[in-house]
Amino acid sequence: MAHTHARSRRGGRNTVTAVYYEGSGRFSVGESEIRPPGAGEVRLDVAFCGVCGTDVHIAHGHMDHRVRVPQVIGHEMSGTVAEVGLGVDGYEVGDPVVVRPLDTRAETPADKGFSHICRGLKFLGIDTPGAFQNSWTVPAFTLHRLPPTVDLRLAALVEPLAVACHDVRRGEVVADESVVVIGGGPIGLLVGLVARAQAADVMLSEVSCFRRGLAAGLGLDVIDPTAEDPEAAILERTGNAGADVVFEVSGSAAGADVMTRLASIRGRLVIVAIFPEPQPVRLFDFFWKELRMLGARVYEPEDYERAIDLLAAGALPLERLISAVEPLERLPSVFEDLDDDATAMKILIDCRT
Amino acid sequence: MAHTHARSRRGGRNTVTAVYYEGSGRFSVGESEIRPPGAGEVRLDVAFCGVCGTDVHIAHGHMDHRVRVPQVIGHEMSGTVAEVGLGVDGYEVGDPVVVRPLDTRAETPADKGFSHICRGLKFLGIDTPGAFQNSWTVPAFTLHRLPPTVDLRLAALVEPLAVACHDVRRGEVVADESVVVIGGGPIGLLVGLVARAQAADVMLSEVSCFRRGLAAGLGLDVIDPTAEDPEAAILERTGNAGADVVFEVSGSAAGADVMTRLASIRGRLVIVAIFPEPQPVRLFDFFWKELRMLGARVYEPEDYERAIDLLAAGALPLERLISAVEPLERLPSVFEDLDDDATAMKILIDCRT
Repeated sequence: MAHTHARSRRGGRNTVTAVYYEGSGRFSVGESEIRPPGAGEVRLDVAFCGVCGTDVHIAHGHMDHRVRVPQVIGHEMSGTVAEVGLGVDGYEVGDPVVVRPLDTRAETPADKGFSHICRGLKFLGIDTPGAFQNSWTVPAFTLHRLPPTVDLRLAALVEPLAVACHDVRRGEVVADESVVVIGGGPIGLLVGLVARAQAADVMLSEVSCFRRGLAAGLGLDVIDPTAEDPEAAILERTGNAGADVVFEVSGSAAGADVMTRLASIRGRLVIVAIFPEPQPVRLFDFFWKELRMLGARVYEPEDYERAIDLLAAGALPLERLISAVEPLERLPSVFEDLDDDATAMKILIDCRT
Repeated sequence: MAHTHARSRRGGRNTVTAVYYEGSGRFSVGESEIRPPGAGEVRLDVAFCGVCGTDVHIAHGHMDHRVRVPQVIGHEMSGTVAEVGLGVDGYEVGDPVVVRPLDTRAETPADKGFSHICRGLKFLGIDTPGAFQNSWTVPAFTLHRLPPTVDLRLAALVEPLAVACHDVRRGEVVADESVVVIGGGPIGLLVGLVARAQAADVMLSEVSCFRRGLAAGLGLDVIDPTAEDPEAAILERTGNAGADVVFEVSGSAAGADVMTRLASIRGRLVIVAIFPEPQPVRLFDFFWKELRMLGARVYEPEDYERAIDLLAAGALPLERLISAVEPLERLPSVFEDLDDDATAMKILIDCRT
């Protein structure tokens, strides 16, 4: 299959709109040159791009040691193929796609074959330019094709949904198991929904009344750990056994403390949250109940395929996770507003021209 | 196969010597009635019984909430069948045996089939009378037969060796993997020896110079974490990958802190030590390297069989772990002396009449 270098849907424009992170928590709206795809690359017209918790961390200046400014960030995207570079087979202009934003080309044997978490990993949208712009050029190996009928708004949720698929797969959740999710943010809710899609019995523990209400609206059973003892609630619900799998998604000291108490004998714990500092953990419970704890980070290709399958099947109420869709130019103020908005869940940025 | 109730090697004596824990750290030497085996039970002539770290905890009074006094303790034993109770098949007077000291009869469905750590577990020698006496009557289901040629002194090490076999099995150690053992007490050394018997590349980290010397004498490679950075040492040795499996056997805050740093991407950690208090743990490393941590407690029947196989094959230098063999009457002073003896490893009590 031969490809020409310049197949493109776009006309004579050379620049597009982009939002740049400028460091120290500041953003600017500007232009970026359209970058034609090199060999092995594809240029995309970005459709939608979600605001991730990591983006908020960047906006708070917490990742200034890592992000080289000015930098376009954003990685939870959907879009269509705009140009296909040399040597790229299987994609045509107009194909709807999502990007698995992991550049794994620096993998070494010391990474033991786990390229998705290799030490030389570059994360697109953090370590290299991201998707908060009209046009994005990426390595073709990062693409996953979408079914033609998929709503590109919902497809911007594939990335966080793939995180949840990875978490649930790492937790080896099977039908009829009891699952507790600690923390009801976007990832916690998605973990709960994916676990339920695998016929698990899911409870979600969340301190925010708003988030509990949203989770309940999604059909998840909720626990308010400030009002009832979660351990007693889980034991009662599981015939005194405890939960088969506990997902710690809150990143809170309270979550790290309670997680081992909620788990059954030989129960599994999945660490999804990022804990910057060491946390007190009840190692005695690991010994006593022979618990197993696994970390889960990003995703592997099969997690993306699973997420796309769930999306295409309409199996999950993803629409209800979308708090707002904002135009690209409003992204700087979106970051400002998020700090004061306890009711925001997933905000999408419309990156279409 | 028919059994009579009173087959016995013993003559007319009705009492034997026993050492009783009296509470508050005190022991006494006394007599105990020979208890004929009931249905499903076997009476043993105890040969040797090792002093376990748990016994030392009891001697310090730390388990007075659990141990009902006066109580004969001790569970690391070897012996021979002296009397066989009704309904017990497969054992004859004189058979050499060891006891897997777990009474699992209170298991419930909430224990998920893991009877060895069921919530109603009774540990023989802690919750019920133990083996620091000449004669011990136990349920027949706790017995494992020994090959006739086995040295009963070494056979008293089957119980701690089965702990190590369970730990290594939980860690899923396979040939050519790199293994770090943190802590070089009896269990740490046995974990190292069992892992090496499975062709793993074993390093043992231990702060005590005496214990490092003993480990080196057993052919294990040792690290002094007070003199060199264990992370740097492990990385250098593993081609920058880190250890495939880390066993935390020290029970120290330093061990809990360093364990995640020593592990490779997708490395496994096995919590063998008993940590009474929550410990700061680098949960970030679980996320970043997708680590897995498993607790390991006591053993299952196959761990006993593996331990007996290793013993019978003469595959491990177990003799060198035995610091001393003392007569039963000296047990109270053995406990006193142990507190001042940094060079004691495994002390055996000769319980033969």
